[in-house]
Amino acid sequence: MRKVYMDNVAATPLLPEVREAMLPFMGADFGNPQSLHSWGDAARDAVEEARGQVAALIGGVAEEIIFTASGTEANNMALKGIARAKADKGKHIVISAIEHFSVINSARTLQKEGSEVTIVPVDGSGKVNPDEVLRSIRKDTILVSIMHANGEVGTIEPIADIANKLAADGPVFHTDAVASAGSIPVKVKDLGVHALSLAGNQFNGPRGGAALWLKRGVRMLPLMDGGIQEGGRRPGTEDVPAIVGLGKAAELADKTLDTKIKRLSSLRDRLIKGVINNVAHTFLTGHPVERLPGYASFCIKFIEGESILMLLNSFGIAAASGSACTSRALKASHVLLAMGINHEVAQGSMLFTLGLDSNEDDVDYVIEKLPSVVDRLRQMSPVYSKFLKEQKGG
Amino acid sequence: MRKVYMDNVAATPLLPEVREAMLPFMGADFGNPQSLHSWGDAARDAVEEARGQVAALIGGVAEEIIFTASGTEANNMALKGIARAKADKGKHIVISAIEHFSVINSARTLQKEGSEVTIVPVDGSGKVNPDEVLRSIRKDTILVSIMHANGEVGTIEPIADIANKLAADGPVFHTDAVASAGSIPVKVKDLGVHALSLAGNQFNGPRGGAALWLKRGVRMLPLMDGGIQEGGRRPGTEDVPAIVGLGKAAELADKTLDTKIKRLSSLRDRLIKGVINNVAHTFLTGHPVERLPGYASFCIKFIEGESILMLLNSFGIAAASGSACTSRALKASHVLLAMGINHEVAQGSMLFTLGLDSNEDDVDYVIEKLPSVVDRLRQMSPVYSKFLKEQKGG
Repeated sequence: MRKVYMDNVAATPLLPEVREAMLPFMGADFGNPQSLHSWGDAARDAVEEARGQVAALIGGVAEEIIFTASGTEANNMALKGIARAKADKGKHIVISAIEHFSVINSARTLQKEGSEVTIVPVDGSGKVNPDEVLRSIRKDTILVSIMHANGEVGTIEPIADIANKLAADGPVFHTDAVASAGSIPVKVKDLGVHALSLAGNQFNGPRGGAALWLKRGVRMLPLMDGGIQEGGRRPGTEDVPAIVGLGKAAELADKTLDTKIKRLSSLRDRLIKGVINNVAHTFLTGHPVERLPGYASFCIKFIEGESILMLLNSFGIAAASGSACTSRALKASHVLLAMGINHEVAQGSMLFTLGLDSNEDDVDYVIEKLPSVVDRLRQMSPVYSKFLKEQKGG
Repeated sequence: MRKVYMDNVAATPLLPEVREAMLPFMGADFGNPQSLHSWGDAARDAVEEARGQVAALIGGVAEEIIFTASGTEANNMALKGIARAKADKGKHIVISAIEHFSVINSARTLQKEGSEVTIVPVDGSGKVNPDEVLRSIRKDTILVSIMHANGEVGTIEPIADIANKLAADGPVFHTDAVASAGSIPVKVKDLGVHALSLAGNQFNGPRGGAALWLKRGVRMLPLMDGGIQEGGRRPGTEDVPAIVGLGKAAELADKTLDTKIKRLSSLRDRLIKGVINNVAHTFLTGHPVERLPGYASFCIKFIEGESILMLLNSFGIAAASGSACTSRALKASHVLLAMGINHEVAQGSMLFTLGLDSNEDDVDYVIEKLPSVVDRLRQMSPVYSKFLKEQKGG
């Protein structure tokens, strides 16, 4: 059977060059970077090279990179670490309604600790209005966290515009760039942020290799206590293979960014056009233009996303319905609800994320199979039967 | 030059079988365990198989295993997660004086949040007295955390004896088994604990693959917020290769435990005897018998551990002086100080940790080289000159 992988938001295949870069550190160069001998030296050099590679991808300084095990950890560290460090300056935090759960739920935890949280809404395309952010700012606002791009609908947020509206001596501005880093240009100076999360597994790097970039001078309390690794800000034995892989993936993403954006945008637009033209009662979710290159997201009315996934899988097609972090929870996406899509329609969420291996044949295969899959499911849907009857009646 | 690696406490080489088990998940089987398609199924099955393998190593139930990225994370999760979940029941925590910094510093953080911490002393061999633990227990003691074995001197603690003294409805009993799991028998029922931390990189498994075992029914607040992974207790995309590697390493450690213990104990005793007999003013640290099989630890008077490490490295020998988590901090070990060793002598701490590749020739090479290294350093030591003069004078 043909195999078509269009779930790069959930997992990207590791680039062969990345794997090759990692393998020595799973072999002869297995040392601990903290050790005072030659095994340690090799590991330490590799970690520091990776730090430079990650910094280069986002236009930061190597010393400002803190390696973590996941984007979730980087977001937890940013939200809790910065808010707790600035607790004496204020207790107000601003986030958007479509943040990842690692941001939303970290804000909720901070709320239990006494923080006050303002959740800025988004429009129907999933975009945050910079003026809304500005209006939410109070004298005691210590932290603003707005994602760079959304991982469910691909909408790119106006981070630089928001940064421009914030006072120079205002709150710390963090952006969760897990969905965007390595996929579109992400330069911390252009964005005007003080902290940024990224994860290698979103751009063909390894699991376990992620980072928080924290601008020099921004204080943060560590999430974990322990040894002196990462300047005492993130203890635990360094996962050298993952860090090296993240570094290599960052270097490669930086080099190939322009061609990747062109290729994936073209495939994405072909897929969007094909799906919208061939599947009735279906609409694109997220922003029509300001969206991540590989992201084609839809709501398909009268069916549930999970059922489509199962049937598509039987045709060898991998896709997603909402975030991998909640897919098995079978709840309507908070992102779609925040965009004003109703609960029933949000159940029909579908997300195809194209990647390195995707090509036009893959796209055409999905466009060919999806309509019949949707039809088959709608034939079993009481809601759809009711809709058809109402149409005839009306 | 001959290369002799005796720093297995800082890093163990990955077993070839473990690497082989991991590689498919760094290749074709790159899926996300949460995904509702065949790529996800393969990843999910692999994670659940690993959960069973880790549970088998410690005689626990698979559902009680929570995967983490490091032993440090598992310890942070145990200390903070359990104490915070039980904050309404009491605020008193008991730890020992020789815990890893991920335990000691987590307890300090809890202290800032209002907890009261009792630090139980150890004797000259680094052993905790179970009666001391019992005496420290109060009505509001919610958590006791005593390590199973110490990673700097190898002393094995009387965990089962401590458990026997604790009331059945008493505090939650956690043990940090990072240094012991995979090296000596670690069975949660025999130990009588409610929570246990372990890390694959201590028994020839990968970095990034560690776990907290938490007995069913013991409540814990997650350290991080985010998605639904690990039953919502540890969010973030699963690091499938690391988890699979941890599982395989656990399976292999379980199978080979008896032969490994015999082999390493014999090499260790040969090394201890050789060093004590050939290097003057040197004594074994830690318990003479109840110690980890591969651990040969000493205090070598009149010199600093770091200087020995540098010189040994020039002979191709890798060893440690204290914990890798603090080695670059150049402070005297809190473990040795707690054992009653004075500050100056503690500076001469040396730790050789034998592993899979160690053999008698390696041991003999160290025994041959160490005395001349020590002599050379002592010749430059004003403290040693003073000592010699005093000896002559007296």
